Amino acid sequence: MKNTQEWFTEIDEDNHCAFSLKVKRKLHEEQTPFQKIEIYETTGFGNLMVIDGFIMLSSRDNFLYHEMMTHPVLYSHPHPREVWIIGGGDCGSLQEVLKHKEVESAIQIEIDQRVTRLSEQYFPELCQANDDPRAQLKFEDGIRWVENAPDNCVDVIIVDSTDPLGPGEGLFTEGFYRNCLHCLRPQGLLIQQSESPLFHPHILHPMRKAMKAAGFEQLHTLFFPQPVYPSGWWSGTLACKDGLGKFRAEDARHKPFSTRYYNEHTHRAAFAAPDFFLENVGRLEK
Amino acid sequence: MKNTQEWFTEIDEDNHCAFSLKVKRKLHEEQTPFQKIEIYETTGFGNLMVIDGFIMLSSRDNFLYHEMMTHPVLYSHPHPREVWIIGGGDCGSLQEVLKHKEVESAIQIEIDQRVTRLSEQYFPELCQANDDPRAQLKFEDGIRWVENAPDNCVDVIIVDSTDPLGPGEGLFTEGFYRNCLHCLRPQGLLIQQSESPLFHPHILHPMRKAMKAAGFEQLHTLFFPQPVYPSGWWSGTLACKDGLGKFRAEDARHKPFSTRYYNEHTHRAAFAAPDFFLENVGRLEK
Repeated sequence: MKNTQEWFTEIDEDNHCAFSLKVKRKLHEEQTPFQKIEIYETTGFGNLMVIDGFIMLSSRDNFLYHEMMTHPVLYSHPHPREVWIIGGGDCGSLQEVLKHKEVESAIQIEIDQRVTRLSEQYFPELCQANDDPRAQLKFEDGIRWVENAPDNCVDVIIVDSTDPLGPGEGLFTEGFYRNCLHCLRPQGLLIQQSESPLFHPHILHPMRKAMKAAGFEQLHTLFFPQPVYPSGWWSGTLACKDGLGKFRAEDARHKPFSTRYYNEHTHRAAFAAPDFFLENVGRLEK
Repeated sequence: MKNTQEWFTEIDEDNHCAFSLKVKRKLHEEQTPFQKIEIYETTGFGNLMVIDGFIMLSSRDNFLYHEMMTHPVLYSHPHPREVWIIGGGDCGSLQEVLKHKEVESAIQIEIDQRVTRLSEQYFPELCQANDDPRAQLKFEDGIRWVENAPDNCVDVIIVDSTDPLGPGEGLFTEGFYRNCLHCLRPQGLLIQQSESPLFHPHILHPMRKAMKAAGFEQLHTLFFPQPVYPSGWWSGTLACKDGLGKFRAEDARHKPFSTRYYNEHTHRAAFAAPDFFLENVGRLEK
């Protein structure tokens, strides 16, 4: 189980398992000031981006993650006009956000410009909205961004981060969430990718605890499939500034754009928490 | 990406990916008249059963599959008294079925007795209900069983089979489904594991087509996570003899037994079909 010329393998040391994709060739490798980025052409999954040895996305299945990190939160907000994406340098979340006509401004705050430049080159299908006049691409530290931003200026914050290692670490802290809470307008919503419900309860539950400690009123963890991530099952956690985000089901039913996973039904389904998760919430978030 | 002494690897040749589990040791290996069975002790997933090179189950995550192959169908039937499990030799589905007090008889029809004997030895936690007076373990060919059984004699049939290769192949045919339909009483339901929604549309949709051709009135494909199976995302397809199986939500809400994944909410969630699946239904099942 080693990386060979024929396979890219990501080993999950904590869970003693590994996932491998057959590769045709390595298209690119570089060490940026922040991380090591590799791009592969795979045999069955299209192009693959790997950061610091961890799979970030493949052409084949990124639609699951990008749709579920954006449409559920946007259709849970009554009028999402200003949206920030913290991280998300591949621009896939930005593109989904801009499918919503009511969004007037979407700012992507990615610390590493190279992620975006490489995505433009190797995942051009995710970067179709980069020239939308409503889009702004900032290459700055998302932690600083929310520290310095004025209060009450944004409706939805999407934290589309790497794992809480390296540059992503500070995005899982109470301090970061408190700053986000201040930036959000009334009825504001935040969603953050929250790892595998099965493999990473030691990340997911402390993260939820930090969100609550920061003052978010209600949390909803969303569950969805994502084959290239450990366990093939992933989550996002939606946090509400005040009160429950009400699902605009009628709008979702008549969405004026196409999706591959998301619809009114998978929206509702994503909110269904398994019994073991509910038990963990009671046990690990006290 | 080879099997080594340290790792068990299942390569998905069609999808050009692989999943590996770290192993401590091989506990058992035998060639039965039907298939090759291997049992491993893994580092992170407990014991592992492999048949003809394909992962069947691990101690760690089989609860997902077993709960979702049983409780949704049983809580969709108004009064499931007689239940058959075709295949299911590890006895995990049988055990879940017998948690339902209204079940008066559950017959497991497994072609290969060795699967059950090895499960008793290496997965004893799945075999706790084998001595239940309502349980019968038959070691026969499930295809013959439904051919020879009288009409109108069973309420629920659970087809807990291997992939449509080797002994499992005949369980994916119109002839088999027609026999099942005859065996079912009015309001009867059948569920069959139907592979990965993302990786195996070439199995799933022909299977649904065969069920319809056999005369089943309504089909519902259920979606759930299963980390050790290809793509980490799996499905079961529920077929109704006549009319819609109505969900006994109140009973599910007050189920007198514990589960880890299944509950009233994950039941409903499992029925939510992604847009790409609905599109495939229209395109591939004509």
